[in-house]
Amino acid sequence: MGNIIVGQSGGPTAVINSSLAGVYYTAKDCGSGKVYGMLNGIKGLLEGRYVDLSLHIRDNLDVEVLRRTPSSFLGSCRYKLPHHHENEEVFAKIFDILKKLEIECFFYIGGNDSMDTIMKLSKYAAEVNSPIRFIGVPKTIDNDLAVTDHSPGFGSAAKYIGTTMKEVIRDGVVYGGNQINIVEIMGRHAGWLTGAAALSAGEDCEGADMIFMPETPFCFEGFYERINNLNNRGKKSLVIAVSEGIKLENGTFVCEYLSQGEKATDAFGHVSLGGTAHVLANLVSEKFKAKTRAIELSILQRAASHIASRTDNDEAFIAGGHAVKGAFEGKTGMTVVFERVSENPYTIKTALVPVEMIANVEKKVPAAWINEADATVSQEMVDYMRPLIQGELSQIMVGGLPRHLILK
Amino acid sequence: MGNIIVGQSGGPTAVINSSLAGVYYTAKDCGSGKVYGMLNGIKGLLEGRYVDLSLHIRDNLDVEVLRRTPSSFLGSCRYKLPHHHENEEVFAKIFDILKKLEIECFFYIGGNDSMDTIMKLSKYAAEVNSPIRFIGVPKTIDNDLAVTDHSPGFGSAAKYIGTTMKEVIRDGVVYGGNQINIVEIMGRHAGWLTGAAALSAGEDCEGADMIFMPETPFCFEGFYERINNLNNRGKKSLVIAVSEGIKLENGTFVCEYLSQGEKATDAFGHVSLGGTAHVLANLVSEKFKAKTRAIELSILQRAASHIASRTDNDEAFIAGGHAVKGAFEGKTGMTVVFERVSENPYTIKTALVPVEMIANVEKKVPAAWINEADATVSQEMVDYMRPLIQGELSQIMVGGLPRHLILK
Repeated sequence: MGNIIVGQSGGPTAVINSSLAGVYYTAKDCGSGKVYGMLNGIKGLLEGRYVDLSLHIRDNLDVEVLRRTPSSFLGSCRYKLPHHHENEEVFAKIFDILKKLEIECFFYIGGNDSMDTIMKLSKYAAEVNSPIRFIGVPKTIDNDLAVTDHSPGFGSAAKYIGTTMKEVIRDGVVYGGNQINIVEIMGRHAGWLTGAAALSAGEDCEGADMIFMPETPFCFEGFYERINNLNNRGKKSLVIAVSEGIKLENGTFVCEYLSQGEKATDAFGHVSLGGTAHVLANLVSEKFKAKTRAIELSILQRAASHIASRTDNDEAFIAGGHAVKGAFEGKTGMTVVFERVSENPYTIKTALVPVEMIANVEKKVPAAWINEADATVSQEMVDYMRPLIQGELSQIMVGGLPRHLILK
Repeated sequence: MGNIIVGQSGGPTAVINSSLAGVYYTAKDCGSGKVYGMLNGIKGLLEGRYVDLSLHIRDNLDVEVLRRTPSSFLGSCRYKLPHHHENEEVFAKIFDILKKLEIECFFYIGGNDSMDTIMKLSKYAAEVNSPIRFIGVPKTIDNDLAVTDHSPGFGSAAKYIGTTMKEVIRDGVVYGGNQINIVEIMGRHAGWLTGAAALSAGEDCEGADMIFMPETPFCFEGFYERINNLNNRGKKSLVIAVSEGIKLENGTFVCEYLSQGEKATDAFGHVSLGGTAHVLANLVSEKFKAKTRAIELSILQRAASHIASRTDNDEAFIAGGHAVKGAFEGKTGMTVVFERVSENPYTIKTALVPVEMIANVEKKVPAAWINEADATVSQEMVDYMRPLIQGELSQIMVGGLPRHLILK
């Protein structure tokens, strides 16, 4: 086999490097030539920035450390290729570099925007009769990719959120008083991750009291009423999960509500200091005279590789490996997806589908899984998520902290 | 032996329940009678709220789950006893309850305020010739207890902070652009926990770029200058650790700076939505045109038992057990402390000291360990902390999430 190149694109996940490890390990195992890594994705490649990965992943221990390293090992970018009819120069440049490196297969690990890159590159290759194959490897904590049962990266973020929610819920009852903790979770357009807060409920945990996702409009009156109802039922400590992207019926983001409606700007006239949780916590603290706390999970939810899901990490690795196998069999313009073969026991199979089916499409949480009246999610949604958070990786600790592999 | 009672007080830690487990297990092992747990500490006891712990900790598996459960299993309180010369009624009430329960020994797991409770109760017992013994078990994530080498709870919070800093630092370099992440850490008066951010530096991590603790006055000009210097040296992604309690030379908390100096209030006239990190992030984003993010570790740093330090958890358990042994030998009015016998290999021994030495005293980070000019901490401080974050507990996972023991 000839040489291959792999890149990472879009926001990182706790297991995006496991897919990189899967591409590297499988390619080497299949007798590939050099495995190049583009630095900062296609943007870096256009600037001629890439590395020979075998100089950085020295042995199988490095492969294992890489699988446990958060962020994108090769760096990332948010770069949208133009259409090649509009600007062929960019494509010519990319293909020149690929030719110079004697690349036969090109792998891109990313979300729906990154799949757009694979789509455009493979179409261009067809037009110019280039034999280079282009395959996408899915990743996103947001789980909003179409076709695939779920996306690598989601399970680990969901496991972090479930774990953290359980810890926050326990902490919330410690003083026995009225306490409202509002936890802000990523996912501006789709509520998958916010829904993962529901995983916290079980034999040893009350679970989240309310879950608000961007799929349904947020209503202040209903929100206050539910708090009142819970208080009246003797529930003093509430933990509420909100997506950063919840909006009012009129389309205003809740995180912009104060700034638009009531002018909460800082000294420089910036729109509000905090996000959705801070806005809600401030309103609620005023109204209910409860101790209130806004907790933003921030980038911790996409970076917490120390509590990654074993299932997710393994599947991310397998997705990378499957992409390599497909490309080596001659496939191009495709992306790896998962199909759930069986619910219980949980079994999946991987497949390759045309990348057009995934590129630029956003998958939302099905309406049937959202119980708007209670601000909860259905048991079906919990059952869908539960297998994805199973298992942990043995930790590789040095000096008391998780070891990471970094580009030096 | 007769009956004993144990309570938890003040803010929780990831291992305060390991001390409770240590008290329970050791007392049972030493042939104690009933082991009662006061609910919400001394405040709950005064309301007659307590449980028989053997009904809630059924076996040794429960002991292990309890050791891995965050928050305070028995609930907590922030309640300061009056002096008994001012209000003897409260003391009489407490001693009546203890007499009714045939209590011989009383254990209180808490910080310097809680040690005040042990001090006052033991003094009162001496005055009224009560044979009940009162022993304190230290805990605090803040590590600000006097006499003891360190406090149970600190090591686990430090391990969480070190782990999270490493993950945030990796995430920060992903796009290769200018990025300033400001991480806010607990510890209003002492910088121990903020200093734990320094643990992130090592062979595989650049570490925190600056660390600001409450022990030294914060200066905006110096802060901006350091950012400039780092940017000029080609460091694009900065991660800065700040204590929630940093103050300007004039005594103003940085988190109140905007509100006082420049009137950043919300719609209700509340003082600023965010805390220290949000204030700094806003100022910096304005000044440096960098992508900026405020990350508050919030209660996650005291509740993250899923990444607790094995050393810390074991020591918390031992502290509880040592308190029981001491009381059973007839000691009272004392508290458990750790003495570091050897630095390398790390060895400690436990001892009992008069509680007056700890009650109401706050231990700050020594000036010699703070490098004010660089906004870093000394290697000596890192060497002091490193042994405290060693090791992990095997995880007890159910449904993909850490199992907790809760009072039903």
